[in-house]
Amino acid sequence: MNTLFREIRDTPLLWLLVFVPVVFAVEKLSPESHTLLFVLSVLAIVPLAALLSHATESVAAKTGDAVGGLLNATLGNLTELVIALTALRAGQYALVKASIAGAIVTNTLFMLGASFLLGGLKYHVQEYNRVSARLQAGLLFLATIALLVPSAVFSADSATAFNHKLSIGLAVLLIVTYGLGMLYSLKTHREHFASEGPAAHGEAKWPINVSLIVLAGVTLLVALVSEVFVESVQMAAETFAMTPAFVGFIVVALVSAAAEIASVFSAARKNRLDLSVGIALGSASQVALFVAPVLVLLSHFIGPTPMDLQFWPGAVVMILIATLTASLVTNSGRSAWFVGVLMLMVYLIFAMTLYLLPPRVA
Amino acid sequence: MNTLFREIRDTPLLWLLVFVPVVFAVEKLSPESHTLLFVLSVLAIVPLAALLSHATESVAAKTGDAVGGLLNATLGNLTELVIALTALRAGQYALVKASIAGAIVTNTLFMLGASFLLGGLKYHVQEYNRVSARLQAGLLFLATIALLVPSAVFSADSATAFNHKLSIGLAVLLIVTYGLGMLYSLKTHREHFASEGPAAHGEAKWPINVSLIVLAGVTLLVALVSEVFVESVQMAAETFAMTPAFVGFIVVALVSAAAEIASVFSAARKNRLDLSVGIALGSASQVALFVAPVLVLLSHFIGPTPMDLQFWPGAVVMILIATLTASLVTNSGRSAWFVGVLMLMVYLIFAMTLYLLPPRVA
Amino acid sequence: MNTLFREIRDTPLLWLLVFVPVVFAVEKLSPESHTLLFVLSVLAIVPLAALLSHATESVAAKTGDAVGGLLNATLGNLTELVIALTALRAGQYALVKASIAGAIVTNTLFMLGASFLLGGLKYHVQEYNRVSARLQAGLLFLATIALLVPSAVFSADSATAFNHKLSIGLAVLLIVTYGLGMLYSLKTHREHFASEGPAAHGEAKWPINVSLIVLAGVTLLVALVSEVFVESVQMAAETFAMTPAFVGFIVVALVSAAAEIASVFSAARKNRLDLSVGIALGSASQVALFVAPVLVLLSHFIGPTPMDLQFWPGAVVMILIATLTASLVTNSGRSAWFVGVLMLMVYLIFAMTLYLLPPRVA
Repeated sequence: MNTLFREIRDTPLLWLLVFVPVVFAVEKLSPESHTLLFVLSVLAIVPLAALLSHATESVAAKTGDAVGGLLNATLGNLTELVIALTALRAGQYALVKASIAGAIVTNTLFMLGASFLLGGLKYHVQEYNRVSARLQAGLLFLATIALLVPSAVFSADSATAFNHKLSIGLAVLLIVTYGLGMLYSLKTHREHFASEGPAAHGEAKWPINVSLIVLAGVTLLVALVSEVFVESVQMAAETFAMTPAFVGFIVVALVSAAAEIASVFSAARKNRLDLSVGIALGSASQVALFVAPVLVLLSHFIGPTPMDLQFWPGAVVMILIATLTASLVTNSGRSAWFVGVLMLMVYLIFAMTLYLLPPRVA
Repeated sequence: MNTLFREIRDTPLLWLLVFVPVVFAVEKLSPESHTLLFVLSVLAIVPLAALLSHATESVAAKTGDAVGGLLNATLGNLTELVIALTALRAGQYALVKASIAGAIVTNTLFMLGASFLLGGLKYHVQEYNRVSARLQAGLLFLATIALLVPSAVFSADSATAFNHKLSIGLAVLLIVTYGLGMLYSLKTHREHFASEGPAAHGEAKWPINVSLIVLAGVTLLVALVSEVFVESVQMAAETFAMTPAFVGFIVVALVSAAAEIASVFSAARKNRLDLSVGIALGSASQVALFVAPVLVLLSHFIGPTPMDLQFWPGAVVMILIATLTASLVTNSGRSAWFVGVLMLMVYLIFAMTLYLLPPRVA
Repeated sequence: MNTLFREIRDTPLLWLLVFVPVVFAVEKLSPESHTLLFVLSVLAIVPLAALLSHATESVAAKTGDAVGGLLNATLGNLTELVIALTALRAGQYALVKASIAGAIVTNTLFMLGASFLLGGLKYHVQEYNRVSARLQAGLLFLATIALLVPSAVFSADSATAFNHKLSIGLAVLLIVTYGLGMLYSLKTHREHFASEGPAAHGEAKWPINVSLIVLAGVTLLVALVSEVFVESVQMAAETFAMTPAFVGFIVVALVSAAAEIASVFSAARKNRLDLSVGIALGSASQVALFVAPVLVLLSHFIGPTPMDLQFWPGAVVMILIATLTASLVTNSGRSAWFVGVLMLMVYLIFAMTLYLLPPRVA
């Protein structure tokens, strides 16, 4: 356990962990302070997500390459998944869908854009392996297309029965694809994905027992804090004049990706753009191929009614723009600060649009 | 004629020719067995398409490069054209349009995807000439854009007079473009397209008189079988619970491309992906630039009313996704099995969506 | 002043300047001859645009690299801006928006396509620097995406207040991006954009005082002729059976880009495709990032009511197709005549569609 405490002491981000007990205390004492609870739960989730990510990597590092890679890939978006599950149980499907869409857009436009900007401020031109970047951007493009076919092809008012059957079939296909994708990236063609492994983080690894305890404990904490978050978010959004679409798309996506964002930025500053591109695009693909279909399938067991994979048209457009941008931008294998500025600008425009959105549209 | 019989004996696919007389017999004896007639006509069209393709190549090989190339290019989608003409004469415009859209999507997603998968199971990474692949993908993209402008820009309920004038103008422009494209690929820049020629198939060529007789005779047979096919398809679709969109988009497209599919797959297994990519993308371009406009122009003479080039929105989205995917995927000039899996998955999702579609939508 | 007259004598295009006084004379004597005035004003704007462009370059050449580049970039679309401002003051927002959309499409599809065709008729295959072409196509793609987010994400009937707030925020973001883009292309990464400078034109430069007088005088003349043009265009369009969308999208865009078109074509014939691609894509980006937002912001001061950035869906599709085409086509860094034919064909199809359009749609 000492390793854990030492880590917390040395990582300023983890000092935010102090907000975890505070959230629970405030929830007990003043369950009606929605805005305060919202802010506190956001502040508490960020360090928990970082711990979760670190614990996953530690377990992965100890269990050997194959199982480790599998774990890393599957639990990489665990925070996102837990928050979405909480929202699913509360029947807040608009929030769940907005957070899926937002995760893909945030991973591509924000993470990648900010990496290019941060890296570009330090290095004149940054080069990275365009062959594997193109491959990953291609996979992401196809993964999001697969996710979006029902929404892109039919309008939301199509027959509900049709939608549900299609969503289940689609979810199964996506998960099969995801499984084959792991076979591909972890086994048959691992050399193309080598640099993404946990070794990238120079930090000391925890012993396996600490890692497993942290993994279990922190997942539970994330689940508990998520409950506060999901309950308070609707009221808090009104206070801050934020639309639900903005909360799901921007706030939830940024909060739950905090740990990855930190890794990606640090890699970019070290001129290791291959790693940044790999994490950003890989994580976005995972949301489309794994998180989204798992949520659809689980909605048949834990939600009040089944959830389909029908996104509102604006979200479809934003996701397509984001992945198409990722494809076009990573195509050249080189970047400079202004490319990052442009990507962040598109992200900012999305955020501004969602913020100003009349509530009834989304 | 012996060459022809020897060829049939040695090619198991051609044994299916036995179903040609069977179709006519059953149609005479039991014209109401729509489902049986549908299955038989499908089984009969597949070997006829293969013969047609082979006869075209033989004629092309004998008539010298320029005329031969022209013949090959023009008659390459002859089966598709004959089936569509039959449907056109019967006034089944939804089927005609679905088969145009389906041919483009099948050529790109299915043919290319399955080639990448089949080739990738045998070779770790397959490389192909990305310069000419990009060129062809670019041509295909522009060809489909040209085809889709009216549907993409205006909704189906725009004034009919406007639609018909636009469709005729568009058809003329597309055919002019097609003519210039042949000048380009057969004359001024033939070196970029060299490997696609008939020499690719190692099979012995027939004498010119056999080829011409086969070409004429088989075209007639395809036309006759198509009539049975088009008549029975609607009823049979109901039996199999298939939507008309599914039949046109998937079944007709796969049936009429059977011969090309065989060539493309065989090339992929021989690590000749240049050839696979060339046939798949070239054939898709041809449907957009030649088959579709010819059908529009002919509809003014043989159909009950003129046909326009307005596709339903779902088909537009699917075509655009397919050609965009072809562009992005062939961009790197290398493929591995998982790229094929992803493309097939998107195709499968399209098929599933069309299968589950509530009938009134398409 | 002699230099100016010598230049006019040697450049046949500038002989059209004779139409400038003719326009004003006809307007005085016969203000009701709308069709005649329309034709005359078009003929007068073309040489004025050429002079304006030449004067800008001369001033830029004299004021040193940094200020010169800034001037060149900002005033490069001055004709376009002046015409649009005149239409804005007259409250013809449909015309303004159509001319913004048309400028982007004309710069990419028409200028680039015709360059590829003209160059390709002379050279078998033309190669150009694909790294900088990709960079510029990527910037253009992101610039147009940023411009189109509101239209792509929401339908035109969304709340007006929302639209106006969003349009102002967007305009500010676009101009900030434009400023950063100039910092990038003129300062931090100027080496990627070096060849686009004024030195490209081999013509003798005017003295600074001549240039400044010409710049001021010609801008005034363009403004005055634009007024005649905008007033007469509606009536003339009816005479020629042209829709307003066609006039804005095609006629205005071609007229105001006349000078650039001449430069781009001449570079293509000299096998300097880098220059053609740079001018065409750079100018299109500038319309999206500078001209459009400036018009929105100015509409709050000079128009009858504020203008938003909501484009009609057909325009959105056309702009996206144009920039996506530019990305895909410039991707390979090589071109041949048929690529140009295909791009021009898409442009022609757009033009035909807009021409045949039932008036109420656009």
